Amino acid sequence: MSIQYKNLDTLESYKALQARSEDIQKNVLLTSEGIKKANINAGGGLQYNYAAKRVDEKLIDQLQALADDQQLIEKYKDLLSGSFVNTGENRMVLHQLTRGELAGAVMYEGKNQREFYLEQLKRIEAFVAAVHAGEIKGSTGKKFDTVVQIGIGGSDLGPRALYLSLENICPPVMKAAFISNVDPDDANAVLSGLDLETTLFILVSKSGTTQETLANRNFVIEKSKQAGISGFDPSKHMIAVTSETSPLAGSSDVLDAFYMDDFIGGRYSSTSAVGGAVLSLAFGYSVFSDILAGAAEADKLALNSDIRSNASMLDALLGVFERNVLGYPTTAVLPYSQALSRFPAHLQQMDMESNGKSVNRDGKAVDYATGPVIFGEPGTNGQHSFYQLLHQGTDIVPLQFIGFLDAQINSDLDYEGSTSQQKLKANLVAQIVAFAKGSPNENANKNFEGGRPSSVIMGKQLTPKALGALLAHFENKVMFQGFVWNLNSFDQEGVQLGKILAGQVLAGGDDMDPALKAFSELLNI
Amino acid sequence: MSIQYKNLDTLESYKALQARSEDIQKNVLLTSEGIKKANINAGGGLQYNYAAKRVDEKLIDQLQALADDQQLIEKYKDLLSGSFVNTGENRMVLHQLTRGELAGAVMYEGKNQREFYLEQLKRIEAFVAAVHAGEIKGSTGKKFDTVVQIGIGGSDLGPRALYLSLENICPPVMKAAFISNVDPDDANAVLSGLDLETTLFILVSKSGTTQETLANRNFVIEKSKQAGISGFDPSKHMIAVTSETSPLAGSSDVLDAFYMDDFIGGRYSSTSAVGGAVLSLAFGYSVFSDILAGAAEADKLALNSDIRSNASMLDALLGVFERNVLGYPTTAVLPYSQALSRFPAHLQQMDMESNGKSVNRDGKAVDYATGPVIFGEPGTNGQHSFYQLLHQGTDIVPLQFIGFLDAQINSDLDYEGSTSQQKLKANLVAQIVAFAKGSPNENANKNFEGGRPSSVIMGKQLTPKALGALLAHFENKVMFQGFVWNLNSFDQEGVQLGKILAGQVLAGGDDMDPALKAFSELLNI
Repeated sequence: MSIQYKNLDTLESYKALQARSEDIQKNVLLTSEGIKKANINAGGGLQYNYAAKRVDEKLIDQLQALADDQQLIEKYKDLLSGSFVNTGENRMVLHQLTRGELAGAVMYEGKNQREFYLEQLKRIEAFVAAVHAGEIKGSTGKKFDTVVQIGIGGSDLGPRALYLSLENICPPVMKAAFISNVDPDDANAVLSGLDLETTLFILVSKSGTTQETLANRNFVIEKSKQAGISGFDPSKHMIAVTSETSPLAGSSDVLDAFYMDDFIGGRYSSTSAVGGAVLSLAFGYSVFSDILAGAAEADKLALNSDIRSNASMLDALLGVFERNVLGYPTTAVLPYSQALSRFPAHLQQMDMESNGKSVNRDGKAVDYATGPVIFGEPGTNGQHSFYQLLHQGTDIVPLQFIGFLDAQINSDLDYEGSTSQQKLKANLVAQIVAFAKGSPNENANKNFEGGRPSSVIMGKQLTPKALGALLAHFENKVMFQGFVWNLNSFDQEGVQLGKILAGQVLAGGDDMDPALKAFSELLNI
Repeated sequence: MSIQYKNLDTLESYKALQARSEDIQKNVLLTSEGIKKANINAGGGLQYNYAAKRVDEKLIDQLQALADDQQLIEKYKDLLSGSFVNTGENRMVLHQLTRGELAGAVMYEGKNQREFYLEQLKRIEAFVAAVHAGEIKGSTGKKFDTVVQIGIGGSDLGPRALYLSLENICPPVMKAAFISNVDPDDANAVLSGLDLETTLFILVSKSGTTQETLANRNFVIEKSKQAGISGFDPSKHMIAVTSETSPLAGSSDVLDAFYMDDFIGGRYSSTSAVGGAVLSLAFGYSVFSDILAGAAEADKLALNSDIRSNASMLDALLGVFERNVLGYPTTAVLPYSQALSRFPAHLQQMDMESNGKSVNRDGKAVDYATGPVIFGEPGTNGQHSFYQLLHQGTDIVPLQFIGFLDAQINSDLDYEGSTSQQKLKANLVAQIVAFAKGSPNENANKNFEGGRPSSVIMGKQLTPKALGALLAHFENKVMFQGFVWNLNSFDQEGVQLGKILAGQVLAGGDDMDPALKAFSELLNI
């Protein structure tokens, strides 16, 4: 069957879904039978549970019809096989290929892409082993004990979120830190806590031209020189992760370089060398390898054409139903795990940069809502913060909970009859039920209407493998939603204008827009 | 003139505003004359600039009419004078009184409230001086060099955001850390990096009964005992910030206790002893005192009945116009300062917990939208993340930028003709202009429609005084919006149901809701 690209609002299956906006409201969220039934394997030991969503079997069938109508599985297979689905930039989309080969060999200009990504990972593995063994040392002869990633956006958020997710469960072999912002206070603050002689920097920029990253590279080099350490050579303290065609590739200013390419988007690059170098240096290559294995499991499950066995596809379609039929403009991500403190920020980029678009993959404006605003903080912290609005605000916010049976650190204590982990889980359960079922009260201020939908992803423990599956689940969810909305989820033209205007301000020419000029004066640039 | 409480949709001035929803779209955002004119003193050396908002002089006049109609200044004065404006809980709202007395003495049961708050701050000042001088030492005779705040929600987010905002510009006298989540991984991770003998813990809970905080206190005490340090006494390493009537007050389990009361809401408590103890221990009392001075300036400016001279009131009303007339459901907070990395999370609580409500101050349901979803990350990081959706998504998100002329750390470098701080500011200016004016392109994928409104708060440098004004600006904005929507912004009944249900799960009784029980089993509680 050939693949057809259609706008969502041209599909009969979508019109049928729209007709459900009223009667679906009558359904009661969350029944005890539903809880055990509405559980789907999400890979890496994770389960996706949608019992607290506003659904019935008929709706799931309708979502299946939409999935079939919009050829979601065919489009996923097409992507996996190396089609140039990033239409705007005319590129393949190959981040899944960094963790497995699901649709045969992908060749580009005579090169086997899977072998290319694997080769980079093998080079990283060997480099990391040599650093950890002290065979590769700093320029003054000291062993490296710290790694600092210099990158921004996709070169920062994903790897940083994953590092924080694992630092308690995988004892770091090397300490890791991150510099991203061009704000000089960021680099200064990170550098102030480091011993430069034992620090290895990773410069991450696909193009090798990212303004913030080059400015921060220069910052690190100049500060190193100012430190006046005898025999210190910055080029022996820096590696690059970049594309083979970038100015950083093969530069004598770096100790070594590891490669990705244009077929790995920044926000999808955590499982490429971009995440691989820093996470392997921090925890050892085997930890990174476990992340890849978990992601590969989720990628494979995403091939299931039965929506009841495909967690990421169901998650995607429930999100479309809530966004386009029920009209909810935002989604909250609520991990009940402090280790996932920056995971919502990573999802915020992955989702909003992929699907925050108003034109379809052919460059034509669409007439329906696309990607929602994504935000979130860990529970129970959020309960004492913005949950008030989630429970009783005038807008309904769909909720994505994440939780684990066990803590990462095996050192819990009983207090008043329960451990901290039990309290954490009890709060998670309580919130799901409170949002779904509410509680009537004659005092309207204490009344909970309920009917606020959520889903939850549960696992035994936040291990590297579970983390990989969690990451891939959301990547695939966002991909499927992009297919449903007929978007190109893999470019980001919306960030270009600001770069151009910033360049004009710094150049300071007379032809600058008067508003740019007036604000530049106010800010004394 | 007596104060009248009216729902927004009963006001003629609101109906007049609603009539502007179409014609206001014709206005061009951002003219170079407008930029210099649309600048209001926001206190602490800050300026609020609204030139990139969708406004005209007539609209500002209409917002003034709404402010007058809804008696915003009278209601603020009434609050300052000690009225019981927290109707649901029948409490005064006195957080502004922690930094100044703007409406005469506020007495409660014969007690002068201003004197009470000042007395606590004086006690903190003396205690901090004694700790810093080594007169108050740990139980094994070592000087304290680290302070750890144990608290959640308002006892955590504000103080933590302020600490991070200042740690680069005010060299810490003591290191500070924070434990909030009941997740045992949070406490374990923080404790693993500490020397217990030199650490002072601050237990922060107004009621003295917060589940997470008591569990974490117990955690710290038990871990201290397990450490088996000879002569170690946990009660000599812990102080409390609580209300005088709480179980923690006057407990022999703490070294000392400092008080707040029911008239300071958690999310407004940063300028009370809740923020005062930890910030003074970290930086010295004079830094905290400067924060108070900045906040006091902003509080005073908020008394201006002329909306063109009252930044927080204008900010509030522009937000209402965008939320209720233009229908924008979210607001992004975008500080161009890495030091403000957690400030958006604090505002998220302050705003969403205050105004995320569906009933008015008298407990009657309202028929209009109230508090929006608030989210944000520092620039330029966000530019490489979710800005795609802000520029080209299908929903318009009003933007609150924050920026400073100078960095906090005076150690910047020139790279390719500009310093990092200049690059940071150039990006800020470029984004404001790009969002407002857009840029036409015949390729729809590269087209920027513009017309996406923003305002910016600018200061010379993020000092303690500027930070205090920034904090109070948003507190007062949220207060004014609550008055406009006729809400009680100072209670949080929406968080109660979850607490009750969590208690039921932990008690594990047979009468538990079947859904609670089923989920509890799934999560092995």
